[in-house]
Amino acid sequence: MAMNVIVGQSGGPTAVINSSLAGVFKTAKELGADKVYGMRYGIQGFLEKNIIDMEEKIKTEMDLELLKRTPSAFLGSCRFKLPAISADKAIYEKIFEILKEYEIGAFFYIGGNDSMDTIKQLSDYAEIIKSDIRFIGVPKTIDNDLAMTDHTPGFGSAAKYIVSVTKELIRDSLVYDMKNVTIVEIMGRNAGWLTGAVGLAKCEDCEGVDLIYLPEVTFDIDAFLAKVKALTEKKKAIVVAVSEGIKTADDKYVFEHASHTEFVDSFGHKQVSGTARYLATLVSEELGIKARSIEFSTLQRCASHLATLVDITEAYQVGGSAVKAAFEGNTGMMVLLKRISNDPYICVTDLYDVHKIANVEKKVPLEWITEEGTNVSSELLDYIRPLIQSELPPYMVAGHPRHLVVDMI
Amino acid sequence: MAMNVIVGQSGGPTAVINSSLAGVFKTAKELGADKVYGMRYGIQGFLEKNIIDMEEKIKTEMDLELLKRTPSAFLGSCRFKLPAISADKAIYEKIFEILKEYEIGAFFYIGGNDSMDTIKQLSDYAEIIKSDIRFIGVPKTIDNDLAMTDHTPGFGSAAKYIVSVTKELIRDSLVYDMKNVTIVEIMGRNAGWLTGAVGLAKCEDCEGVDLIYLPEVTFDIDAFLAKVKALTEKKKAIVVAVSEGIKTADDKYVFEHASHTEFVDSFGHKQVSGTARYLATLVSEELGIKARSIEFSTLQRCASHLATLVDITEAYQVGGSAVKAAFEGNTGMMVLLKRISNDPYICVTDLYDVHKIANVEKKVPLEWITEEGTNVSSELLDYIRPLIQSELPPYMVAGHPRHLVVDMI
Repeated sequence: MAMNVIVGQSGGPTAVINSSLAGVFKTAKELGADKVYGMRYGIQGFLEKNIIDMEEKIKTEMDLELLKRTPSAFLGSCRFKLPAISADKAIYEKIFEILKEYEIGAFFYIGGNDSMDTIKQLSDYAEIIKSDIRFIGVPKTIDNDLAMTDHTPGFGSAAKYIVSVTKELIRDSLVYDMKNVTIVEIMGRNAGWLTGAVGLAKCEDCEGVDLIYLPEVTFDIDAFLAKVKALTEKKKAIVVAVSEGIKTADDKYVFEHASHTEFVDSFGHKQVSGTARYLATLVSEELGIKARSIEFSTLQRCASHLATLVDITEAYQVGGSAVKAAFEGNTGMMVLLKRISNDPYICVTDLYDVHKIANVEKKVPLEWITEEGTNVSSELLDYIRPLIQSELPPYMVAGHPRHLVVDMI
Repeated sequence: MAMNVIVGQSGGPTAVINSSLAGVFKTAKELGADKVYGMRYGIQGFLEKNIIDMEEKIKTEMDLELLKRTPSAFLGSCRFKLPAISADKAIYEKIFEILKEYEIGAFFYIGGNDSMDTIKQLSDYAEIIKSDIRFIGVPKTIDNDLAMTDHTPGFGSAAKYIVSVTKELIRDSLVYDMKNVTIVEIMGRNAGWLTGAVGLAKCEDCEGVDLIYLPEVTFDIDAFLAKVKALTEKKKAIVVAVSEGIKTADDKYVFEHASHTEFVDSFGHKQVSGTARYLATLVSEELGIKARSIEFSTLQRCASHLATLVDITEAYQVGGSAVKAAFEGNTGMMVLLKRISNDPYICVTDLYDVHKIANVEKKVPLEWITEEGTNVSSELLDYIRPLIQSELPPYMVAGHPRHLVVDMI
């Protein structure tokens, strides 16, 4: 079927979001798409007709391989939420005008639950105006908080980074013969999947972390200090992992106890940071023990140099499956991952109604967190373990990873 | 020559300090050493006879390969400076008593310029008491601030980490179509070698960082803000690299402008941190531009997963050469690296009087910093480039790097 398609990337970047882009591009060309357009900076750039012909950027098989290994969103991304159709019809009219101008038959959006809202709204509007343009969502988020899918592409690589680097930090924490506390801050505003992954650091050659605090459980500062104190009486180096989003019983983020500053992003989410720093200061001051904080911050979402082969492959597959679904006539759907078997790990793609996915956050089940709320269960670790297996190393050129770049600025 | 030898590690860990340990161990065994002892936690543990037989920990060739790939100090480390011989003769008597007890013929200490002071003092004392025990220093520090040696093992891997991860961060910084400033804080209290290395991020596939501030140049906060403001008028994403140790004209660390807290470590060095955070806050508040700070902190000194093959090899070689030197009758010396040629890169080991190295800090020559003090010259980059080439990837087991561990705690 000859038609043009367009693809965009939205929300926070991951190490493998570009592998999904590669999957969309390659599959669309193979299924006979005429033009494969890319929107720069998601729907926001689309509205300004900031649109490129992907074939001008991906010219060789080597480019495609580099794209899979390039962190951040190749096309650029946005945090832009479409208004309700009833609130602003004009913006939808404008979008469909541009789609018509570019003769687009299918629209793919790679993103998280906020981005799936865009697919939902656009497919709803298409139904209202009887447009036959197909809208398919491609899942992506390091946070793993998308509903219905077994897990999200991007999560496995971030988890692999966290486990690998935490193992290095634990070795470092043991270097001096003195009591010390390291507090590691991990992304995940409301869902503790990434923070929970740190549990995999405990293995044959590593002591693992001592305490793990997920945002699903209310954080008690006094209980935390008591736990740390008790641990330091038994061993010299304590390593604690905290989610950036842990909150105390008064519904305040832990870092808000330190500061009155508050940032809100354009999706209305509070910007959180400084949790580990605040807790390390407390440990130093209240317990008199040397404490340091480490924020993985942006590093954990762009560490393509530690990407998981499973993750890169699945990211590519969900991109390709989205195109296949559209070419088969589907719309208003998201591609998801369905785990057939855990060991051996077998996972396939499937399709699901995006209306049941958009704006829903999937959290870690409470039964996968230990009773005291300071560790995770083996079920959680069994769930994550297959997702961090095997590597797709970067092409190292001149001593550092080579990337594919849309435009040098 | 049959004798026992002992080796210790001191100062801050690096990604390759254990490769030097592997070089000492293997070479000592090959040259006929009877026992190869390891002191836990450097000279501090030695004084408590916290001494192990290395052969009990390194049993196979595989163990030796794992040791090369293990971050942090395998034996543990310390920050302990010996008093002057005139000030405390008793401690020297105790050390030589223990050396006698273990029938030690040669003593190797892997460390930086503070650790070389230990070698200097012990070899001086040996001369005073006519002991024929040999004391040889093995260079190590990510800071590259040791005198006489072309560069220090540990520096190249930290530089490779900084370049690779900064390239990922730069891609991430370009993801949204909005003005933003990223400030990256890099280790190096007084010497800007590591911060300067970030200049290598500018290459075929990367825009590089916009400003580089080394501690060798006085930092002017107003001039910095003016520079950033001018840059944000020309481009959307600005990335700035700062050394943790930059100071303003009043000799205050930049982070001290934000805080009155001051930590001093046991070598008498101030603990510095928070420079990037402070500057990011200033950019947000004074210029009204979204700014974030990233501290590579401990991550840059323990990232064995991104170690340089050149670095691991040279670290092994300086360890081995130290043993060879001692077996040939040398004492009071440090092994150094001597660059024979830059392209092709050829580097050999040599020996030098430790008295001329201990307690001296080698800084970046001012002629390798651009006139405005906001970038580095091509000479500096040419000097660093060979040191980050090629990789020795970790053995990945179960999805994360495998390490050799002296004892699980």
